[in-house]
Amino acid sequence: MSLVVTGTIGIDSVETSNGSAEGVIGGSCTYFAAAASLLNPVRMVAVVGDDWPADHQSSLMSFEGIDTSGLEQRAGSSTFRWGGRYHEDMNERDTLFTDLGVLEEAPPSVPASYADSKYIFLANTHPSVQMQMLDQFPDRKLAVADTMNLWMDIALPELHALMKNLDGLVLNDAEAAQLTGVSNLVEAASRICDMGPSFVVIKKGEHGAFLHHPDGVAVLPAMPLDAASVVDPTGCGDSFAGGMMGHLAASDCFDLKTIREALAWGTVAASHTIADFGLAGLQNASQESMQTGFDRFRRITSF
Amino acid sequence: MSLVVTGTIGIDSVETSNGSAEGVIGGSCTYFAAAASLLNPVRMVAVVGDDWPADHQSSLMSFEGIDTSGLEQRAGSSTFRWGGRYHEDMNERDTLFTDLGVLEEAPPSVPASYADSKYIFLANTHPSVQMQMLDQFPDRKLAVADTMNLWMDIALPELHALMKNLDGLVLNDAEAAQLTGVSNLVEAASRICDMGPSFVVIKKGEHGAFLHHPDGVAVLPAMPLDAASVVDPTGCGDSFAGGMMGHLAASDCFDLKTIREALAWGTVAASHTIADFGLAGLQNASQESMQTGFDRFRRITSF
Repeated sequence: MSLVVTGTIGIDSVETSNGSAEGVIGGSCTYFAAAASLLNPVRMVAVVGDDWPADHQSSLMSFEGIDTSGLEQRAGSSTFRWGGRYHEDMNERDTLFTDLGVLEEAPPSVPASYADSKYIFLANTHPSVQMQMLDQFPDRKLAVADTMNLWMDIALPELHALMKNLDGLVLNDAEAAQLTGVSNLVEAASRICDMGPSFVVIKKGEHGAFLHHPDGVAVLPAMPLDAASVVDPTGCGDSFAGGMMGHLAASDCFDLKTIREALAWGTVAASHTIADFGLAGLQNASQESMQTGFDRFRRITSF
Repeated sequence: MSLVVTGTIGIDSVETSNGSAEGVIGGSCTYFAAAASLLNPVRMVAVVGDDWPADHQSSLMSFEGIDTSGLEQRAGSSTFRWGGRYHEDMNERDTLFTDLGVLEEAPPSVPASYADSKYIFLANTHPSVQMQMLDQFPDRKLAVADTMNLWMDIALPELHALMKNLDGLVLNDAEAAQLTGVSNLVEAASRICDMGPSFVVIKKGEHGAFLHHPDGVAVLPAMPLDAASVVDPTGCGDSFAGGMMGHLAASDCFDLKTIREALAWGTVAASHTIADFGLAGLQNASQESMQTGFDRFRRITSF
């Protein structure tokens, strides 16, 4: 079933305790699309500047499942750039710089060929832009968004307005606590669903994820990984969402059972992303490695 | 199959963000035995002083599955007492006082009727005492111990000597990192098994548990609980071990599949313990509530 993602594409500079990478491909839309494409074709809506490197474009094109016809390269504009440094505890990071560039301009337009999209993911960006994007998919069956603490600080009314139009919300544990004022995840999840979405997925980084859904809950650990397989967590949350939505679109179903499976596919996608800087981890992934990872994850979590 | 636990019994004073409890029953042996007894009869070896309250003894006796014939009440001695205060984040706590009392004297003796015990759990205490206890169960099929950071600080050679005689070790994530010098849990677990035990279970508190076993690994989240069900985490780790060992003894098996199930039973036992101060949570448990919890936990973690 058709799947579309809207969000950011960027150029990242990242330092972790395992090394650093300068000017690698980044952005919420990018990681989502690369991960989702391993499970279902995915259309992307995003904008870059004329400084967008050709080899980054080639990297994106190397994912056969990504439709880049909604990727606008805007003359005279600069691509979004982000720099960050992770702590030894990779759940913590400092932002070193943010150059919004083209993200401060008008959002990209949605190609007419995308208008019939059924599964919509609004990767992290300003909730007003997310709302504007959502309105362009009138035939949608499922709309899910990611968000972040920044929008709770500076655009909370817009975020609340967006939430009333969502089927699902994906966010991390600290963000769920900030949004609800409740630190207990089970209760925070329930309160978020009172704000609009039918279901919410709370990401806990290396500690897994929690789902609140009208038909029940689900809880999953993260994939246990040795130190050599934990290189750069940038984009793991977006890859998780990509694996999740890719499975829902491929199944054309979003009942509780299917969302539980989807969380596992998201976990497997994120375990590929974290293995290298930028998109390199997902470029080394395949349908086969995803299936192998899924089977292993099911085996080590079953009892 | 026969199961025995050696360890401490104490009188605890606990403060959490949900309230406080003065002089409640505590100790590693206590929580282990109460949890295990819901799945398999359990023999306890421990010592208290003549200040041991009759109603605490009644509390222990109220667990039908606990054999207290190895519980020595020593005249002229004082029961071990511990006081602690938990932070808002219940993974953190401060010890307010520790009165070792009878724990500084000779360890309790093992009743002759216990000598044929097959499943042995050495709950947390000095590794030399654990070793001395272990030697008294020559017919053992499975020997598992818990330990803590204190013994790594002051009795590391004794702990290493003990480990060479263990089939399994249970400890928390910070302790695993301290023992191995490795913060990655997957690698820390592997290194611990190089020190002696066939398998190791690393407890991560509210984030679940990880098993390293010669036939494979397992990873489980903790039980998701609302705020009203999270009252006092004291004894959760011991209850987890009790549920785990209770299932292994009841199954008379400790292959990978059975240990994976056992981790889930441990999780369910701990979810009862945390619901109230002292033993009150486990006193409200039953075989039925354990089975209901296990079935729910399997349902919400399956995909």
